[in-house]
Amino acid sequence: MDNTALFNLSCGLYIIGAKDGEKNVGCVVNTVTQSTAKPVTLTVCINKDNYTNGCIKKTKAFSVSILSENAKQTTIGVFGFSCSKDKDKFSGVPFKLTPNGLPYVNEGVTGFLQCKVIDFIDVYTHTIFIAEVEEAENLFKEHAMTYEYYHKVVKGKTPEKASSYVEEKKDANLPAKKYVCNVCGYEYPGSAEEFEKLPADFCCPICGVTKDDFSLK
Amino acid sequence: MDNTALFNLSCGLYIIGAKDGEKNVGCVVNTVTQSTAKPVTLTVCINKDNYTNGCIKKTKAFSVSILSENAKQTTIGVFGFSCSKDKDKFSGVPFKLTPNGLPYVNEGVTGFLQCKVIDFIDVYTHTIFIAEVEEAENLFKEHAMTYEYYHKVVKGKTPEKASSYVEEKKDANLPAKKYVCNVCGYEYPGSAEEFEKLPADFCCPICGVTKDDFSLK
Repeated sequence: MDNTALFNLSCGLYIIGAKDGEKNVGCVVNTVTQSTAKPVTLTVCINKDNYTNGCIKKTKAFSVSILSENAKQTTIGVFGFSCSKDKDKFSGVPFKLTPNGLPYVNEGVTGFLQCKVIDFIDVYTHTIFIAEVEEAENLFKEHAMTYEYYHKVVKGKTPEKASSYVEEKKDANLPAKKYVCNVCGYEYPGSAEEFEKLPADFCCPICGVTKDDFSLK
Repeated sequence: MDNTALFNLSCGLYIIGAKDGEKNVGCVVNTVTQSTAKPVTLTVCINKDNYTNGCIKKTKAFSVSILSENAKQTTIGVFGFSCSKDKDKFSGVPFKLTPNGLPYVNEGVTGFLQCKVIDFIDVYTHTIFIAEVEEAENLFKEHAMTYEYYHKVVKGKTPEKASSYVEEKKDANLPAKKYVCNVCGYEYPGSAEEFEKLPADFCCPICGVTKDDFSLK
């Protein structure tokens, strides 16, 4: 069995928004799929360890921000590589609220959906939420970001909690060590010497942390 | 609510293969999504009216052929716009069998998956099957076909039973009638006069029927 065959399943990239009491919570997923046309329903698959998962189970409501190719890497980084329990992820991005008060990202997106959970089913590490789409709006005429574009063009990384996470294999023959972000795993493409010469205000292009959060690996 | 916002949900195009006793059955879907990485599971959403749906509920097994950009329009047409009850859809395409005997398309694909259903849930018009991937192989180094590519480049049509089917609006101000395929709805892009001058062996590029199956609409 060659698990890389599944790399050819096409998907997009989305930020799920939800509420934890008054607080806004959210995470990145690549698992939003339309299920039916009348009424309009969809599924989204979210890791059980994701703080947002528990909030959606309680409130039965979530928003979907459909990321475009203009989405900032730092937005994806914050929503993919930090936890809503400790951090208000929406505080650092332009956001608005859906008609029923769910946060959605208002920059680098094609539009948003407001969804009401009608059922869910746990599958090993993840939960599949089935939801009716109550509101849907196009916001910007931008091209939706596919997961392939995120990997090939943006050179983005996949969080460990993702449905499609595959451990990266290290080549033992490669002698040169690289600086790697401790938070999101982003590997600086240049040499160690080049990394050390970067200005002090360099930030990880994926999750936004500073040079101090990189280690030579 | 603007339902076209959902057009920006990215997805691929797949042929689902299954067994009806000794007979091979199958259909086209755009709803295959990976759910978990360990073990590898996925979901696929199939219309309840689709003959293949009932066969999968009985056998709890299906294959996924991941279509590439080289997939023939006639392959998609046959699997999307005819019924496995009346027709052996696999008879007209190169196909092989997975280790446990499920048919998969062996041309115009990136690879195949062999899946075992572990659960399913009915959602209005469709069934969401949750399955473990038992086998997965890459076959050809081709680029996976996205649903967007199918619509924008291949100019493909969506079967009415699809999860994302949206009725096409006709512009009442357009006076010129067009020849439209009675089977799959493909509209010949040229004028009626141009269609009538086409050679007698012209076939619908989507579903493969002859000129006789076109009507002026």
